[in-house]
Amino acid sequence: MTAPIRIAVLGASGYTGADLVRLALGHPGIEIVALSANAKAGQTMAEVWPHMAMYPQLPRLVRAEDIDWSGIDAVFGCLPHAASAALLSTLDGPRIIDLSADFRLRDAGTYAEWYGGEHPAPALLGEAVYGLSEFARGRLPEARLVACPGCYPTAVLLALLPLVEAGLIDAGRVSVNALSGVSGSGRGLKEANLFAEVAEAVHPYALGAHRHMPEIEQELGARAGHDLRISFTPHLVPINRGELVTCAVEMSGGATVADLHAALQLRYADEPFVHLLPKGVAPSTRMVRGSNHAVVNVFPDRITGRALVIGAIDNLVKGSSGQAIQNFNLMFGLAETAGLGQAPLFP
Amino acid sequence: MTAPIRIAVLGASGYTGADLVRLALGHPGIEIVALSANAKAGQTMAEVWPHMAMYPQLPRLVRAEDIDWSGIDAVFGCLPHAASAALLSTLDGPRIIDLSADFRLRDAGTYAEWYGGEHPAPALLGEAVYGLSEFARGRLPEARLVACPGCYPTAVLLALLPLVEAGLIDAGRVSVNALSGVSGSGRGLKEANLFAEVAEAVHPYALGAHRHMPEIEQELGARAGHDLRISFTPHLVPINRGELVTCAVEMSGGATVADLHAALQLRYADEPFVHLLPKGVAPSTRMVRGSNHAVVNVFPDRITGRALVIGAIDNLVKGSSGQAIQNFNLMFGLAETAGLGQAPLFP
Amino acid sequence: MTAPIRIAVLGASGYTGADLVRLALGHPGIEIVALSANAKAGQTMAEVWPHMAMYPQLPRLVRAEDIDWSGIDAVFGCLPHAASAALLSTLDGPRIIDLSADFRLRDAGTYAEWYGGEHPAPALLGEAVYGLSEFARGRLPEARLVACPGCYPTAVLLALLPLVEAGLIDAGRVSVNALSGVSGSGRGLKEANLFAEVAEAVHPYALGAHRHMPEIEQELGARAGHDLRISFTPHLVPINRGELVTCAVEMSGGATVADLHAALQLRYADEPFVHLLPKGVAPSTRMVRGSNHAVVNVFPDRITGRALVIGAIDNLVKGSSGQAIQNFNLMFGLAETAGLGQAPLFP
Amino acid sequence: MTAPIRIAVLGASGYTGADLVRLALGHPGIEIVALSANAKAGQTMAEVWPHMAMYPQLPRLVRAEDIDWSGIDAVFGCLPHAASAALLSTLDGPRIIDLSADFRLRDAGTYAEWYGGEHPAPALLGEAVYGLSEFARGRLPEARLVACPGCYPTAVLLALLPLVEAGLIDAGRVSVNALSGVSGSGRGLKEANLFAEVAEAVHPYALGAHRHMPEIEQELGARAGHDLRISFTPHLVPINRGELVTCAVEMSGGATVADLHAALQLRYADEPFVHLLPKGVAPSTRMVRGSNHAVVNVFPDRITGRALVIGAIDNLVKGSSGQAIQNFNLMFGLAETAGLGQAPLFP
Repeated sequence: MTAPIRIAVLGASGYTGADLVRLALGHPGIEIVALSANAKAGQTMAEVWPHMAMYPQLPRLVRAEDIDWSGIDAVFGCLPHAASAALLSTLDGPRIIDLSADFRLRDAGTYAEWYGGEHPAPALLGEAVYGLSEFARGRLPEARLVACPGCYPTAVLLALLPLVEAGLIDAGRVSVNALSGVSGSGRGLKEANLFAEVAEAVHPYALGAHRHMPEIEQELGARAGHDLRISFTPHLVPINRGELVTCAVEMSGGATVADLHAALQLRYADEPFVHLLPKGVAPSTRMVRGSNHAVVNVFPDRITGRALVIGAIDNLVKGSSGQAIQNFNLMFGLAETAGLGQAPLFP
Repeated sequence: MTAPIRIAVLGASGYTGADLVRLALGHPGIEIVALSANAKAGQTMAEVWPHMAMYPQLPRLVRAEDIDWSGIDAVFGCLPHAASAALLSTLDGPRIIDLSADFRLRDAGTYAEWYGGEHPAPALLGEAVYGLSEFARGRLPEARLVACPGCYPTAVLLALLPLVEAGLIDAGRVSVNALSGVSGSGRGLKEANLFAEVAEAVHPYALGAHRHMPEIEQELGARAGHDLRISFTPHLVPINRGELVTCAVEMSGGATVADLHAALQLRYADEPFVHLLPKGVAPSTRMVRGSNHAVVNVFPDRITGRALVIGAIDNLVKGSSGQAIQNFNLMFGLAETAGLGQAPLFP
Repeated sequence: MTAPIRIAVLGASGYTGADLVRLALGHPGIEIVALSANAKAGQTMAEVWPHMAMYPQLPRLVRAEDIDWSGIDAVFGCLPHAASAALLSTLDGPRIIDLSADFRLRDAGTYAEWYGGEHPAPALLGEAVYGLSEFARGRLPEARLVACPGCYPTAVLLALLPLVEAGLIDAGRVSVNALSGVSGSGRGLKEANLFAEVAEAVHPYALGAHRHMPEIEQELGARAGHDLRISFTPHLVPINRGELVTCAVEMSGGATVADLHAALQLRYADEPFVHLLPKGVAPSTRMVRGSNHAVVNVFPDRITGRALVIGAIDNLVKGSSGQAIQNFNLMFGLAETAGLGQAPLFP
Repeated sequence: MTAPIRIAVLGASGYTGADLVRLALGHPGIEIVALSANAKAGQTMAEVWPHMAMYPQLPRLVRAEDIDWSGIDAVFGCLPHAASAALLSTLDGPRIIDLSADFRLRDAGTYAEWYGGEHPAPALLGEAVYGLSEFARGRLPEARLVACPGCYPTAVLLALLPLVEAGLIDAGRVSVNALSGVSGSGRGLKEANLFAEVAEAVHPYALGAHRHMPEIEQELGARAGHDLRISFTPHLVPINRGELVTCAVEMSGGATVADLHAALQLRYADEPFVHLLPKGVAPSTRMVRGSNHAVVNVFPDRITGRALVIGAIDNLVKGSSGQAIQNFNLMFGLAETAGLGQAPLFP
C-alpha cells in the first residue's frame, strides 16, 4: 500500500463540501488533513452535520487562512465563486480540484458578464483543465488546476457531446429543460429554500439567465466549431438530490434516433460511470441517487426530425463532488473508480 | 333561493371524483344525490376517503347501474375512458359533464388510434362541447354534453391559445415540457405510484406518446387553421397536486415578448380564474394549489425569436374537477365562480 | 346583509398571518382593511406570497405603527411573542384576537420562566380569555381580548379535556408524543428549516422543554383541580401542515376504553369542527388538511389500564388561524362556522 | 485474498432484498450467485429496479425452487413470513440469514397468535440465533440459522437493553412511540402506500397490535428476567428510509439520566455501528440514512423519575439488510464492518 494522498477541503460546511468529505471517508487512498469553513471555524464536522456524528476522527473546521499547506498534496475547493479563485490563486503547493465556477469559463469577459465582477485570477484561466472526466482524461494526469463542471453542464454535456462530435445534431438548435433537487442551491439561508416553500411545489427559475448557460455553450461550441446559444430552462423540484435534463435536439443530415443511440452506445460502452439505457427506458434520478453514475437515453420526438436526449445524475456526486474525486483519481494515477464504488441508494 | 340542482357523481372513489365532491360540498347551488363507485359500492365516502370523515350526510356509494336517474339534473362523469362513454351514452335525462377523455377528440379514428379501441359512442361526438371554460362560454348554456379538457391540455391551451389566435406564434413549432403531480395518474394500484418509488425522484414518462398530445393538437390546429404536431414531454414530480407547463415557442412575423405579454393581458384581464403574472414572475404550482386558478406568464428565451410561455394549474381543480364545476355553472346559468371561491392553500 | 366587520391583521408576512388572510378572504362578514409586516412594509401580498397572486385588491403591507385604527373593529395578532403584547397593549379600540403566546398563560411568572423575559403587559392577563373555542363559548361574546391556544395545546386539550372533566383519566400521568409539520416553526430563516435538512428525515426537538408544556399543564390542571406536569415530546416531520398527538393515558377508577369513547362521543356529538372517529379508525393529518376540523379517537393500549387518545389537526387552521376566526365569529355573534366551510384538501 | 463466499438472496424483488443486493455489491468477500423472485422470475435486476441499471452482471431472477444450491455458502431470506420458513426449512447446505419474522420468536404459540397461523418449521426455533448483532456476537460464529430482528425491535433494543441489563429502568413500564418510513411496509400494491395517500400526512397504525411487540417483549423480558408487556405505537411518516423510536422509561432505584447516559456510553464505546450522541443532541434519521449506523441518546423527562431514550436507524440497513450483512460477517469470521463502510447520505 502506498502512502495516502493528503487532502484539504475548503468549504466543508456546504452541501458540496460535505459530500466531498463523505466520499473521501470511503476512499482507500485519501487522508483528510484539513477542513475549512470560515463561518463555522472551531466546530467539529459532527456539530455542523447530522450524518457526521460517527466520525469524531475528522479534523476540526478551521479558517482557510489557518491551514498549514505543507504536506498537503491536493485541495478541493468547495467555496462560492470569486472567493474560490481569490484563495486558490494564492496556493502554489497542492494540486487543485476546484468545484466552483471560477475556472470553468475560458474567457474572463464572459465570466465578468455572468458572474457580476472581474475575474479574481484571470492569469490562471489558460492553465485550468475543464474536468468533465470522460472527456478530459488525456489532460488530467498533468493538470495542476482542474475546474469541475457545473451540475447542469455535466448532465447536458454527457448527453450531447458525443452527438455533436459525431455531427448528428445541430448544436445551435438545442433546447434543454432541466429539473434539479434543492441541494443544488446550497445551504445558505434563503426563504426560497425553506421546506414549506419548496415541498408540494415546482417552478422554473433563472429564466433565460442561468449561469450554467455560457458554460454549456462554451463546450458545445468548441466541439461544434462555432459560437452558439442554447435554450435552457431549469426548474426546482422538491427532492434533495438529483438532476434530470430533457434535451430537444434537431437531427442533422438525415440522422435517425437509431443513429443517435448507436453513437452514445459506442462512446459510453466502456465507461464505468456513464450508462446508455436500453431502448425505451426513461432516465430517472432514482437510478443514480447517491452515486457517481449517470444514465442517458434517446427517444424519438413527435415532430419529425427531432429527438429527445435525456440524462440524469446526482447533482452532488457526478454533478459535483463525485466527479471531483473522479478527476482527482485521474490526476494522481489512481484507479478511476476508487472511492466511488457505492451503488445508488433506492428507495 | 332557488332549488338546488341535483347531481350525481360517477366514479367517486377516484381522486377526480373525490375532488368533485369536495367542491360540490361547498357549492351553494348543488345537492349531491348519488355517488357511484362500482368496486366500492356499499361503502360510505368516509370509509373510502380520509378527508370525508366529517361528512356522514353524503350518500352511500352505489353501483352506477343502481342509480335512480329520475330527478337528477346533472351528472359528472369521473370514470375511466371507454367506461365513461359506454355508460353516459345510455342516459337521456341529466345534462352531462364528462371528465374522461371520451368526448374530447372530435374524430373517432384519432380516438381509436390513441385510446386503443373503437369509440363506444361515436354518434355523440358531434354534440359534445369541448369545455375549456374560458373559450367555450358561448356554447355551454345550451350544451347537453360537455367534455372537460385533460389537465395538460388545459394548462397548455390557456397559455397558448390567445397567442395562436393573435397570430403571434407558430403553432406548428411548439415544444412543451410539463411537470405533473402524482394524483394525475389516479388512485389505481400501480408499483410506479408507490410512495417509495416516487419520493425523492423525477423522471419523464410516455415519451413521444402521451394521450393528451392529439387533444392539444386538435385545439391548437383548429385555431391555427391547419393540422399540426406538437412536441410534448411530461415528467412525474413528487408532489400531490399541481401541473406546470413550459412551452418553448417561435414567434411569428417579428412579434416580441412584449407583444405576447400584451395579448395575454388583453385576453385574461377580466377572467376570474386565469391570471397573467407581473413581468418576470415565474408561475409556480404553489400559486394555485387547491384552487381553480391558473397563472401564466411569458419570458424571452436566449435563442433569438423564441419565447417561453409558462403556466401552472392544480391538475385536480382547474385541470379537472374545478373546471367541471365551472362548466356546470355556465351550463345552468349560475355565477361562474359559484363554489370555486377558495383561495389557494399555501404552504 | 349587515355591514362587514373591519379587521386588521398584524404580521401578515408569516405563515399564520397568511393563513388568516386566506380564510378572511372567504369569510362573508369580513373586510380586510389593514395588513402589517414591518420588515416587508410597502410590498403587496402578491409580492410576499405566491398564493396571493390573484388578490390585487388586498391592502398593501404597512408597518404596524402606521395603521389607522379608527374604524377597525377587530385585530388579529400574528406577531412573535413579546412583540405581540407590547403592541396590542397600546390599543383601546378594536377587539383583539391574539395568536401569539403572550396571553395564554395566566401567571406572569410562568411566562417569564418559559419565554425568557418579563411579560410586556401583565395587567391584561386577567382579562384575557383562553380561546379554545369549544370550551370558551360562554365567555367569548363579551371578551375584548382572546388568547388563541397554541397548536399543540389545541390538539392535546381537545383530546383530553372531556376525559379529565369526566374523571376518567389521571391528568397527572399523561404522556404525549406529537408530530408537527414544518410550517409550525414559521417562515424565519433557520438552517433547520431548509428543505434539504427536513425532507427525508424525522427527529424530536425541544426535549423536555417545549413552551407549549406549561400551557397544557395550566389547562389540564385547571380541570383536574390540582397542579400537574405532563410528558410532552414533539417531533418534526416533513410535511407542510398537520399535527398529530398520541396521548398515552392511565384510566382512573376502573374506567374502560369504551367509557372514554362514550365521553368523547357525548362531548363532541354536536360540534361542527371536532369529530370522534368510528371505533378502530386512526386519526391522520390528511383527514383535516387545510380545514378547521379536528379528529380524535381512543384505543386500548397493550398495557392494562392504559389507553391511547389520539388527535389530529391542521396546525395552521384549527391550531392557529382557523380557531382565531372561529373565536372571532363567536365574539361578534356570527355563525360559528362562517368562513370556515372548506372541506379538507386531499390528496 | 481468499475465495469469496457465494450467496443467494431469496426475494430480491422487495425493498429488503434489493438493499441486500446493494450492500453485497460493495462487499469485498461476497459473490452473488443466485437471486430469486417468484413473481418476477426471468427478469433482470435492471428491469425490476431503477438503481440496478448499471449492474448487468447480476444473475437473472429465478424462482426459488430453481436455484442450484450446490456451492452456495449462505442464503439471505428476504421473503414474507411463513413463506420464508417453509422454504428455508428445506435447505441443509447453506448457512441461513433470515430477514423474515419466522425465526425471531422462540415460542411457536406466540408466533401462531401474532402471525395468524401455525409455524411452518417449529423444530428449527430452538436452533435459531436472534441476531441483534451487538448482543449476539458470541453465538454467531457457530450459528447455522440466524433470525435478524425486526426493524423496530432493533431500534428499541439497542436503546434499552443496556439499561435493562444494568437494572436502571423498569422494563415493564416502557412506552415506545415510533416513526417509520414507508419502505418498511414493502413494495406490495396497497392503496395505503400510494404516494398521494402518504405524502403530506402522518398517522399511527396497528394500534396496540403491531407484530413487533411480542418480539420486543421477548428480548426485554429475557434480560429483565420476567414476562412483561410494552406499549408500542408506530406511526407512518412520509420518508423513504428511517426509523425513530422515542421510549419513555421509568428509572429504577434512584437512577438518574446521567446513570443511563453512562451505561450507554460504557456499552457502546467500542461499537462500530452504535453511537451514543453528545448530551443534548437529539437522534435524527438523517444521521444514519443509507448506512448501518444507529444513534441513541437519553434525555430527562419533565415528569420526575422518567427519562426519554431515543434511537434512530435506517430501517432497511441496520433495521434489516445491513444487520444481516453484519451477522453474515460475524458468522463467517470476516471483519464485522466488511461491506458496511458507507457513510450516511445527507442530504
